[in-house]
Amino acid sequence: MEIRIMKNILDRNQNKAKEVRDMLASKKVVMVNIISSPGAGKTTLLERTLEEFNSKFRIGVIEGDITTDRDARRLQKFDIPIVVINTEGGCHLDSHSISKALDSFDLDNLDLIFVENVGNLICPSEFDLGEKFKLAVVSTAEGDDKPGKYPLLFREAGAVLLNKIDLIPYTNFNLENFRTDLRNINAGVPLLEISCTKGDGMKEWFKWIEDQI
Amino acid sequence: MEIRIMKNILDRNQNKAKEVRDMLASKKVVMVNIISSPGAGKTTLLERTLEEFNSKFRIGVIEGDITTDRDARRLQKFDIPIVVINTEGGCHLDSHSISKALDSFDLDNLDLIFVENVGNLICPSEFDLGEKFKLAVVSTAEGDDKPGKYPLLFREAGAVLLNKIDLIPYTNFNLENFRTDLRNINAGVPLLEISCTKGDGMKEWFKWIEDQI
Repeated sequence: MEIRIMKNILDRNQNKAKEVRDMLASKKVVMVNIISSPGAGKTTLLERTLEEFNSKFRIGVIEGDITTDRDARRLQKFDIPIVVINTEGGCHLDSHSISKALDSFDLDNLDLIFVENVGNLICPSEFDLGEKFKLAVVSTAEGDDKPGKYPLLFREAGAVLLNKIDLIPYTNFNLENFRTDLRNINAGVPLLEISCTKGDGMKEWFKWIEDQI
Repeated sequence: MEIRIMKNILDRNQNKAKEVRDMLASKKVVMVNIISSPGAGKTTLLERTLEEFNSKFRIGVIEGDITTDRDARRLQKFDIPIVVINTEGGCHLDSHSISKALDSFDLDNLDLIFVENVGNLICPSEFDLGEKFKLAVVSTAEGDDKPGKYPLLFREAGAVLLNKIDLIPYTNFNLENFRTDLRNINAGVPLLEISCTKGDGMKEWFKWIEDQI
């Protein structure tokens, strides 16, 4: 019974996601669904990316958070449209809340929308939001075994950002193990190795995201 | 309707958790439910704790994992009873799967059971497993803002382990901010600041867990 209910919820989510995707395509807006564990660096990635692109593209942000608006406050300096979705304990965003949030944007005057999902490597991967692609962010401090242990996100991702590569010397993270683990799950996905705080690999990330717009 | 169904699931879980808790109390077995984000260091914590206590207490482990038995394999060297629960995509353990797993243990000859929950800071906090207490593990690499952003776990926890304090010099983690954030959510919870790989604070952790048995 639980499984049947879950399927109903996922089906409803999928239908609405398709509507959202079609609508965004018609408006020529690229929506990116950013998924990671808590503290992998999603908000810092957005800060660096907005600094780079804010004068070049018209960008909006949807911030998914359980209960606070802390991440949204960190982005207020950029003077861009931001909508906060508080899930009130919920562990993921869904396409219905995204659809409502999109009503607040002037989509005719946007190129790109970043959705920062709730910090969770599992549940958000199951819910299509109507995005153009999912972006998986994982930090070296989490260990090199994450793709195999949490395969769904890495299988679904349009790109994988390995963040905090500056911490590798201080951890037992093995880059070759990580790459192998990821290739076993998703052989073709682009992998970008970056440090949002130190700057490594950020040019490659900016180029990659620009190519998607 | 979704909310009503969720309440049914939680009620059923709570009833079974009460059964498990009463049964473990009658057997004088302490069960600890370890919850963290992916990669915060739960398995390494278990490795260090088993090295310390394996000759002193009779310990069993339940390993919750989505799809692999990698964490369980890391503990095989200890020659202790280990049961793996694969959730097949599920984002948390529940009391029914724990109850079944406990059938595999000789509870008359155990003092302590560690449950390593699925790596997820959100959903596992909602599901009482019948444990004596929840142990929240959080890594400095996740940032100092986690208690406020994911309050349920920190409110429910019997103790909080702040792991990877050796990484603080290489991150923008602010220990005072973390402590304040935690105190605002749960003023009385014991906070132990440790590094499982470097050894800092481990004696205090061993003493604390010993006091609970």
